[in-house]
Amino acid sequence: MKRLLILLVALSLGGMLAAAEHPMLLLTRGGVKEMKAARGSVPTFDKSLDRLVADADKAVEREICLPVPKDGGGGYSHEMHKLNYYDMYNCGIAFQLTGDKKYAEKVRKILFAYVDFYPSLDFHPLGLSSNPGRIFWQTLNESVFLVHTSVAYDCIYDFLSKKDRKTLEEKFFRPYADFIMTGLPHNRANIKMFATLNNWATWACAGVGMIGMVMGDDTLVQKALKGSDLTGESGFLRQMDVLFSEDGYFTEGAYYLRYAIWPFVTFAECLDHYDPSLRIFGYRNGILLKAVDALLQMAYEGEFMHFNDALEKGYSAQELISAVDIAYHANPSDKALLWVSDTYQHNVLVSDAGFAVAKGIRNGEAKKLQLRSGYYRDGGDSNQGAFTILRPYNKKLNSAVTFKATSHGLAHGHFDRLTFAYYDAGNEIITDYGAARFLNIEAKYNGHYTHENESWAKSTIAHNTLVVDQKTYYGHKWRKSQQTWPEPYYHSFREGLQMASAVERNAYPGVVYARYLVYADVPFLEYPLIMDLLKVKADGPHQYDYPIHYNGHMISLSVPYTRAVTEMKTLGSDNGYQHLWVEAEASGGEGTTSYTWLTGYRMYTVTTTTTPSTEVKICRLGAGDPDFNLRSEPMYLLREKNAADHLFASCVETHGKYDLQVEQSANLVHSCKGIETLLDDGSALVVRYDFIGGHSATLCVWTASADESLTHTVTLPSGESLSWTGVVDAKYI
Amino acid sequence: MKRLLILLVALSLGGMLAAAEHPMLLLTRGGVKEMKAARGSVPTFDKSLDRLVADADKAVEREICLPVPKDGGGGYSHEMHKLNYYDMYNCGIAFQLTGDKKYAEKVRKILFAYVDFYPSLDFHPLGLSSNPGRIFWQTLNESVFLVHTSVAYDCIYDFLSKKDRKTLEEKFFRPYADFIMTGLPHNRANIKMFATLNNWATWACAGVGMIGMVMGDDTLVQKALKGSDLTGESGFLRQMDVLFSEDGYFTEGAYYLRYAIWPFVTFAECLDHYDPSLRIFGYRNGILLKAVDALLQMAYEGEFMHFNDALEKGYSAQELISAVDIAYHANPSDKALLWVSDTYQHNVLVSDAGFAVAKGIRNGEAKKLQLRSGYYRDGGDSNQGAFTILRPYNKKLNSAVTFKATSHGLAHGHFDRLTFAYYDAGNEIITDYGAARFLNIEAKYNGHYTHENESWAKSTIAHNTLVVDQKTYYGHKWRKSQQTWPEPYYHSFREGLQMASAVERNAYPGVVYARYLVYADVPFLEYPLIMDLLKVKADGPHQYDYPIHYNGHMISLSVPYTRAVTEMKTLGSDNGYQHLWVEAEASGGEGTTSYTWLTGYRMYTVTTTTTPSTEVKICRLGAGDPDFNLRSEPMYLLREKNAADHLFASCVETHGKYDLQVEQSANLVHSCKGIETLLDDGSALVVRYDFIGGHSATLCVWTASADESLTHTVTLPSGESLSWTGVVDAKYI
Repeated sequence: MKRLLILLVALSLGGMLAAAEHPMLLLTRGGVKEMKAARGSVPTFDKSLDRLVADADKAVEREICLPVPKDGGGGYSHEMHKLNYYDMYNCGIAFQLTGDKKYAEKVRKILFAYVDFYPSLDFHPLGLSSNPGRIFWQTLNESVFLVHTSVAYDCIYDFLSKKDRKTLEEKFFRPYADFIMTGLPHNRANIKMFATLNNWATWACAGVGMIGMVMGDDTLVQKALKGSDLTGESGFLRQMDVLFSEDGYFTEGAYYLRYAIWPFVTFAECLDHYDPSLRIFGYRNGILLKAVDALLQMAYEGEFMHFNDALEKGYSAQELISAVDIAYHANPSDKALLWVSDTYQHNVLVSDAGFAVAKGIRNGEAKKLQLRSGYYRDGGDSNQGAFTILRPYNKKLNSAVTFKATSHGLAHGHFDRLTFAYYDAGNEIITDYGAARFLNIEAKYNGHYTHENESWAKSTIAHNTLVVDQKTYYGHKWRKSQQTWPEPYYHSFREGLQMASAVERNAYPGVVYARYLVYADVPFLEYPLIMDLLKVKADGPHQYDYPIHYNGHMISLSVPYTRAVTEMKTLGSDNGYQHLWVEAEASGGEGTTSYTWLTGYRMYTVTTTTTPSTEVKICRLGAGDPDFNLRSEPMYLLREKNAADHLFASCVETHGKYDLQVEQSANLVHSCKGIETLLDDGSALVVRYDFIGGHSATLCVWTASADESLTHTVTLPSGESLSWTGVVDAKYI
Repeated sequence: MKRLLILLVALSLGGMLAAAEHPMLLLTRGGVKEMKAARGSVPTFDKSLDRLVADADKAVEREICLPVPKDGGGGYSHEMHKLNYYDMYNCGIAFQLTGDKKYAEKVRKILFAYVDFYPSLDFHPLGLSSNPGRIFWQTLNESVFLVHTSVAYDCIYDFLSKKDRKTLEEKFFRPYADFIMTGLPHNRANIKMFATLNNWATWACAGVGMIGMVMGDDTLVQKALKGSDLTGESGFLRQMDVLFSEDGYFTEGAYYLRYAIWPFVTFAECLDHYDPSLRIFGYRNGILLKAVDALLQMAYEGEFMHFNDALEKGYSAQELISAVDIAYHANPSDKALLWVSDTYQHNVLVSDAGFAVAKGIRNGEAKKLQLRSGYYRDGGDSNQGAFTILRPYNKKLNSAVTFKATSHGLAHGHFDRLTFAYYDAGNEIITDYGAARFLNIEAKYNGHYTHENESWAKSTIAHNTLVVDQKTYYGHKWRKSQQTWPEPYYHSFREGLQMASAVERNAYPGVVYARYLVYADVPFLEYPLIMDLLKVKADGPHQYDYPIHYNGHMISLSVPYTRAVTEMKTLGSDNGYQHLWVEAEASGGEGTTSYTWLTGYRMYTVTTTTTPSTEVKICRLGAGDPDFNLRSEPMYLLREKNAADHLFASCVETHGKYDLQVEQSANLVHSCKGIETLLDDGSALVVRYDFIGGHSATLCVWTASADESLTHTVTLPSGESLSWTGVVDAKYI
């Protein structure tokens, strides 16, 4: 089936070449005509065009400078060459939309400067990447350069003489594309890179395919689509097959989906102009549009959720402008895309797609994006675990609970399975550290991922999940971790009682753990309650750590504790534990222990089953960090020693109002007063949460089979009999 | 003169009583008529009224509950009685504006519940205040209760039978007012309290005066105005004389001015209705309006600047709604007040004043508040130092530099003199800790100022100023500190070269220090530069600490440092130093040391003159804090040991763009490469700051006399001669 489609694609493209006219990539001749005619009447587009022309004007005035490649990201030579491709891109488009030849002339001059400069370059001297570029320290940037430059070349194609074009193509673009596809004679590393199935190769295919289209070289386009061997085993189409699950999830997570989507939508938009009959946006049931939707959903307050290697990025990122505009152009029925553009971006692509979005906004068609609970399977075959988001039905609540039970996520994945996180009232409450990196800041390991990204951010203890024997699982080897993944057990988005759950059998030899995470509207509580059952079974005794990384200020712990006041030591010496200062220690309470913190105007309390032999630690990040690469963040930890089978039964309450502006406060003390495990027999978990006022919530989870239609009846040790239908139920008194 | 005015006030009030009609305090009969007629046509007012009526509806349905006094702020009995006065206030006003008697009936019922309840009360049992109330743990809240209840009583006055009024007044209001003025027979502590000149007494006067007006008891009004002995040595008018400087500055600082202004404007508004001929808003050249303006100016991004005891409060605080509405009602030409209301408050008083504001907003009269540089003298006689704010003229910059050279600020003052702070791009950059308090949170020392407010927040090391020999000055005794204050030397708001400066002679025996703080537009720098010359002279060797408390993430230090990686100790054992963990240590650079951090999207670098014998410390707050009462915040410190005369010459650069959304970064490395003191001869300070690109800024300060007209010519050791006119000049190359 896949092969057939590729064949059809190849056939359909065959007849295209005669008709080629420029511009043809992100802009079309018809589009340009329409945009020029509409000048002054489409505000968002006008503003974006004004900005682009202003940048192009700066570019025109700027002295052309091609420094000898030397620096990494953020360094002078890196930023200068980056500026050059932005300058060319802006000038090319400005030429199309203003007709002013000074812009075309500037592109021409920069391109010819590269004609002289480029052939002499060996690999970049920095030597920090296994796939070095020539202008840039890594091939990735080299490909991004080509994508932008192709657009610029497309825009001035008709302006150039045939002789100019011949020179540019022979001396610059063809060798450049060849470098991207193969490398240099003494190092052909890019052959392998171009054939991989990750975002480096997507950028590479986009660059090669786009310059192929502009040059009228369909062979390059075919290589971009089907790999340089044209077998379809690699290339853009294969990437669309395997890099996303059927739900549009990208295995590295939201932050890198944001980056990966950029070349996908950019190249797809160009392909759609090159050959509309290809219906590239319909490929694999519209996988690219699904990916854009998944990406928008995996955000809180417009910022992408932090899991795996993630920095602060959101809807306003430049990649998202491309993603939103191009997705809307491909599917103008999705009016929420207009809302995202209008609310977060205030900027559109100066292209056919951006123009369509700006017109939609002007016409008042934008509709607010509805964030919802979602289940995003991982893996090209959609069978490698899942990422689940639980969101309240009550639209007045601005909350999200996430549950990560995905596969490892390749080189940008972290060593955490069955992790949860919580967002509420505009803040990250129970947090994921994301990546340890100061992008582009030379003083911080040249802007790369710092050493602490490995030693802390990727370690298991850096996440809200089980850590066994203070070890990061699989000995911190991601290729090993990549071979297995958690098994999703059951999820439900039933109003009032939502659930995510999964079982992990591989992370630690001899240890199986399952997590049942319930998000419930409890009639006697102010806000929905998170109930968390983390059940571990092992073939021998182990130490189990249950960490909660939170954002906020410690308010109270329900048991007496000893704070470090004059001297502070670390929690451990490796596996991430070396990065944690122990601020305070305590013994767990008889029955439960509660820990409360304040974030913004609300309180949050986690209450967990403990005994006096449970160890309680309050820690702060920052130890073992000689270069100040880590943020100073707090962590609360419960430790069970010498346990084999164990159930961490917890709940997270959101409570109280702490409004300094009107000096009103209420409900500042948590309500959960006890947690009792009524049944834990291998088939069912029944846990009663007791609250003040004589209230209780009894959570019933059938753990033996995820059949929604079955009715279960269990007898509790008290002799009481309890029945429920389906996997999960909660009974309130 | 003052006596005469009081006499006139007394005379003018004498003729009032016959004409009294209700309501008369915040609402007037004419005002109510107008508001009712305008219902539905003044959006902000309609919304505020809807909210108030909704709250009144809740109050009507609520079971009346008067718990036995037991708890402090945030506790049940405290919050319940607070709710009662808000309920009465809302119901009273709702009755006036809807005419629905259920509201009046509810006020009546609550009042009569207090008639039964109140007389039996002794002092509040908590025993944490030296001025305990009866319902509340401190008399302050007792007075606030009376202010709100007076408004409620005023609103239902005509609804009540004469008999009801007699009962209420005899059994409740008169004893209540008497308690506020004197106390109880076995403890007359309130006599002294009522005669003090601080905000407790202002609330007390407002409460007593307002209930006096409603009851038609002018004697109570006179006591409120002139003290219970009617001499004018205390009371509201005297408070207006001494609690503000001529510039409207309140000695405790912005945060408590915000609180203090509330009873002032509230009582003044009532007085203005009671007797317009009094022209209370014109009193002392319009001191109350000046105070409101000063308060609005002492804010950044709508939040009051943090100095002395300060929590997070800003324009949206409920006190500010009163201040802004009543100030506008008194002076409708100040259209910026409408802007503050419309932008930050979205709520107006349901009163004549609030109605005026809502009408102004509806009519489109609001004008953006212009924040400007300002010099606010301290002390009733305006001769106790000053607080200076320097703001850029370029309105695209959103920055402020503050310089605190005020008197101590009574019990809420901190032990810091000549402190500076810096705000930029929406963030606090160089910070003041403010108060160590979790208002209303019982788990945190019952919501009071925590012990760490004394041990850390008030200590000298907690501030960006000189610390001598690791001591808080005056042995941390505020009454001693209150007796002296810094001498302002010179300030200038000249565009491009602004300056604040002062000399401190008393803080440390035998040590005199001066600070010359310059905020300059430097032609070759991206953002204005702060140049800071902190000059110390002493009669013997001392240790000088120069701390910079900042908000952000450490990026780099220009000298090699050793980070604590497995163990951390404190910087000292007392005077606040016991609260600082030493994260890293270094020796100063030859010439200068630079320290860079990242806040938001910008970099900030402080570069200071050092030698290799300078000690450099990077610290973090949190040691010696057994109850987690302190926030975890970073500090950078330079230490000069065995110095007598010393000049800390520094600059603070704002530089760079670090935009993760578009992944663009520029100018991330600071520009200042050296600082050289060219002259320091007791009459002049000439310091050259060297920057990359061969640029320099030579700062010339005449320190011997602050005469703007004089021209100074000095000869540098190099033989070069330098001239400038006035106190300060900067020469750029």
